[in-house]
This record gives sequence, structure tokens and C-alpha cells, in this order.
Amino acid sequence: MLALVLEGERVRLATDRPPPKPRRGFVRVRTRIAGICDTDLELARGYMGFAGVLGHEFVGEALEGPLAGRRVVGGINFACGQCPNCAAGLGRHCPNRTVLGIDGADGVLAEEFVIPEGNLVAVPGTVADEEAVFTEPLAAACEILDQLGRRPDGAALVVGDGKLGTLIAQVLAAAGARVDLLGHHTESLDWLVERGIGLLPGQPDRAAYPLVVEASGSTSGLATAMAATAPRGTLVLKTTVGRSYDIDLAPLVIDEITLIGSRCGRFEPALELLTEGAVRVAPLVEACYRLTDAEQAFAHAGRPAARKVLVRGN
Amino acid sequence: MLALVLEGERVRLATDRPPPKPRRGFVRVRTRIAGICDTDLELARGYMGFAGVLGHEFVGEALEGPLAGRRVVGGINFACGQCPNCAAGLGRHCPNRTVLGIDGADGVLAEEFVIPEGNLVAVPGTVADEEAVFTEPLAAACEILDQLGRRPDGAALVVGDGKLGTLIAQVLAAAGARVDLLGHHTESLDWLVERGIGLLPGQPDRAAYPLVVEASGSTSGLATAMAATAPRGTLVLKTTVGRSYDIDLAPLVIDEITLIGSRCGRFEPALELLTEGAVRVAPLVEACYRLTDAEQAFAHAGRPAARKVLVRGN
Repeated sequence: MLALVLEGERVRLATDRPPPKPRRGFVRVRTRIAGICDTDLELARGYMGFAGVLGHEFVGEALEGPLAGRRVVGGINFACGQCPNCAAGLGRHCPNRTVLGIDGADGVLAEEFVIPEGNLVAVPGTVADEEAVFTEPLAAACEILDQLGRRPDGAALVVGDGKLGTLIAQVLAAAGARVDLLGHHTESLDWLVERGIGLLPGQPDRAAYPLVVEASGSTSGLATAMAATAPRGTLVLKTTVGRSYDIDLAPLVIDEITLIGSRCGRFEPALELLTEGAVRVAPLVEACYRLTDAEQAFAHAGRPAARKVLVRGN
Repeated sequence: MLALVLEGERVRLATDRPPPKPRRGFVRVRTRIAGICDTDLELARGYMGFAGVLGHEFVGEALEGPLAGRRVVGGINFACGQCPNCAAGLGRHCPNRTVLGIDGADGVLAEEFVIPEGNLVAVPGTVADEEAVFTEPLAAACEILDQLGRRPDGAALVVGDGKLGTLIAQVLAAAGARVDLLGHHTESLDWLVERGIGLLPGQPDRAAYPLVVEASGSTSGLATAMAATAPRGTLVLKTTVGRSYDIDLAPLVIDEITLIGSRCGRFEPALELLTEGAVRVAPLVEACYRLTDAEQAFAHAGRPAARKVLVRGN
């Protein structure tokens, strides 16, 4: 079958990749649309030492199991189900986990792939494929609400106006926050302004926000985010720069800021937001390629400030 | 009067320092015992650009106001009482605050000093001066419990067995945690073992602790603390290294760790622990000098691994 494969640091379209082997508890899924995300680009630079089929953002059609024939999205962490973390409902933090297209498990940039049956969630009929493919990053944005454990109803700042930052800004605004978005605004974000989100022209006011989310993935992002967080405020760290770098953490202590590291989230709240139309994702799509052109799609996704690049599975 | 004064980066005993001027809302306090802490040593290296009388850990005798004649300890943050933070009960985070012996206000390493009347707390008769002088750092340890908002009843690791680390270990143990203490254990800490605290001989197990407190103030401390924190666990940052340094924060995101910056605390819980004998401070005292020998006391406090050096006000 066709599959976009990472070998060493080379990304190439294989035309003769064997179909995934059946595994107990796993079902086959045919890829309808896959998304390329910054993590995929990082993997190609050597992050995680991954080798295999790339891709973890998808909407597909289940070919087996109780959801056979249905359109599905699915959680990317394949938990062992046996360890204390799994027993505590923290399968996303299972130390024995493999991760779809990221760590020890072939991904979705292929004609088909396999995934644990329990990871799949059916997509409501009103949500288009081009929206459903955003469920995984949108779930990561929704994870912030789960971790906060309270409704963010005050001022909030999102640092970084990339794909994830614009999703997070919408999720927080939908939850009731007054959101400002800080970034380079290299393209029109008027569609966010229409949703009540403010676009900051320059540096945010010092200590002005009880809630700040760092989603820039830049070395300066965290320092900017710390300076903008109010004393006793909450700073959510949603991206990292993928390596160690120089930072002064004294402001965290002096201002008693709570810094919450945040990763993957539950799919259900994300699908709800898409169903309700509370989050728009269409403006985030920059291009959609066929699987036969996946190498070009991957190169396109790596362009500076590129928005979401999608790949159709057939 | 006698006072230990910081001028530039020079620390000297002044014999002719004018007594502090009366200020509205402030009362005069005669120093009974003052403690020298690592922050004082940092100030002498240029931290905060402070100039004036050093010292913020004290037990004294109020010379004026409703507590006149009583032994007192007191909060070190002098809030403006007017700003939104003060209105929200966050006077310790007032942006207009001065800080006793640290920022814009003369400190306690003198015959007497002035402090806002509302900052003073009376010391119970059963608490000796040599214990009461630990109220301020002990309050900083107790602040962790206030910030957690729950009883720490699982395993906890304290990184750093210095003065603050040993106080924190005792506070967590008194609150019900099973505490391990990581440090160089350069002197006998058997008295902590008697209180049920484990002394780690080497590196802690990876991801083994739902609660970790970094109190080492070293550049490697935070990385060690992050590695020991369980997924979705809490890491309290109690000290910093006072400058920017190289660190990889990706584990915070991957393991969704909550990092809580923590500074000063309320005095009441600290005095309660001292009254109940739930925390021992006597083994922390290394030496006690007279105010006339305050320069020697300061030099002593700066020796590597020195424990608490006290100075008697008279």
C-alpha cells in the first residue's frame, strides 16, 4: 500500500508498504483525511528516534469492530491497560504506551492503519471530514479546560498564533474567557476577531492576565508568557522548544505562578465544539493533497508559518 | 544604633545608624534574635540592588501599638493596601510593596526597626526565641500546603537538604506525606529519620512521586525534580538559582506536570507547628552571635553548607 514513511531522517512515499498486521484488540481503519502537524516535522528532524509510517491526526472509516463502516477519529496513545497509571484512568500517561505515528506504532499517512478498538470515537454526521481531522489538536486545546478544573471567565492571553494557538484561543473564548492572541499575525485573523478574540499588536501588559497559554514553541515565548501572567495566576505550557534552552524561572517563584504542562486531551469535548460550530477550523487549512503527493504535502507543511496541510487517503 | 548595613556589595556593622523614623501605620520593634538566610547572602552579591539594613527573619519585642511589650514575629511584605491585589487579599503580591530588609525597607539586623502594625503576630509563650525566629522560613514551607489546597497524603520528595529543605520535609511529614529527602547529607540528619523522613542515598526513582518540592537552589535540582515527578503530579518550585540557566522543560508537557512557584506564607500555621512541636528547628542552628559581631556572623552564614546563623539584638 501507499504510505509516507520516515527512515532515519528521510521522509519518502513507499508504494509497497505491507498493510498493517492484525493485532488483538486493534481494528483496521481506512484513512479518509490525515493532517500533518509540527510534531511530524520534529520527528523528521530526529525527535523520539521514530521510524515508520508518519501521521497521527486523522478521520477515517473503521473497517472492523463495532464501529465498522462508520467515520471515526481516535486517541493516539496506545496504553497497556495493565499498569497503575492505566488502572487510575491515566492511559494517556501509561509508561508502556506506544503512540500512533510518533513512538513505536505506524501512523495514518497511509491507505490504512490499525488502532486499539477502544481508542476510536464515531464522528457525528454534521461534522465534515475536513473539520473532524482537527479533533486531535482540538482535544489537546480542550485539555486545558480539563486541567484547569474551572471555567476560565476572566482575561486570558494565548502566546502564539499558529495552528494550535488559534484553536486554543477559540476554545477559551467558547468557555467564556476574554481572549487576547499574541503573535506575528502574518495573515488575516479577522475571522478570530469576529469571534470576540483580540489581536495584540505588541507586547502584552505586565502581570495583566490571570490565565496565559504558551503555544508559540519559541525560546522567547515562555519568558513573554511569564511576564504577562498575574501573581498567583496560571500559565499553561502547551508547546516546548524541543531542547534545553536558557530561561530564568525566578518570576514563577516570586509571583507564585502555577505552570501547567499540557499535552493530549479527550476527544469528546472537541467533537462537541465542532458539532456546535463553537470552533472554526476551515480558515486553518492551507492545502489538501492526495496521498500520492504526500511527499510534497510534507514539504509544504514545513514552510515557515504554514497552516494546516491535509492529505486525502484515497 | 548598631546595624548591619549593605552598601554596594559591602556589608559592614554601622555603629551610628540613625534609629528608624516613625511612619504612619508602622510600629517600632526591638530585635531579640534575627536569622541570616540565603536571600541575605544573595542581596550582598547584588540581588535586588538593595541598600540598607539587612535581615528579615526575626523575633522581637513590639515597642508600640496593641502588641507593645509582647514578643512578636512579622510578615516581611509591606503592602500598599490600595491596589487590586491588596483588595483581593494578595498583599504579599502587591506590586507597590516594599520588603523588609530586601527591597526598599530597612531590615532587622539592628537594635530596632519599624514594621506595619498589621504585619505583627504575637508569639505564644511556649515557643522560645530560638524557635520563633524560624517562623518566616517555616511559613514559606507551610505555603506549599496552602497552594496545594489538599492534604499531601502520598509519597513526596524534597530535593535539597539545606535549611529550607529540612523545614519543608518536616511540614509535609506533619501533614501526612511519606517524605524522602534528597541531598548531600553532609551532616547527620538522624533527627529527621526519627520523624519518619527517609534520606535518599542516591538518585530518586523516575516518575515515582506524585508530589516533589525543589528546594536545592541548584541548576541540576529542577531537572532531578522533574524526572522524579509522576505523570500528572505536582512539582513545587521553592527556590531558584537566581539567574537564567539551561533547562529542557519538555518533560513538564509530556508528563503534564503542574509546577507551582511558591514564596512567602502565612505566619499562623507556622507558629502552630512550632507550638505543637510538630517541627524541630533546634538542630538547624549552627551558631548564635551578638549584634556587635554581626559581620562575623554574616561571614559564617556564607560558608558552604552552613546551617542557620542567628544574631542576638542585644
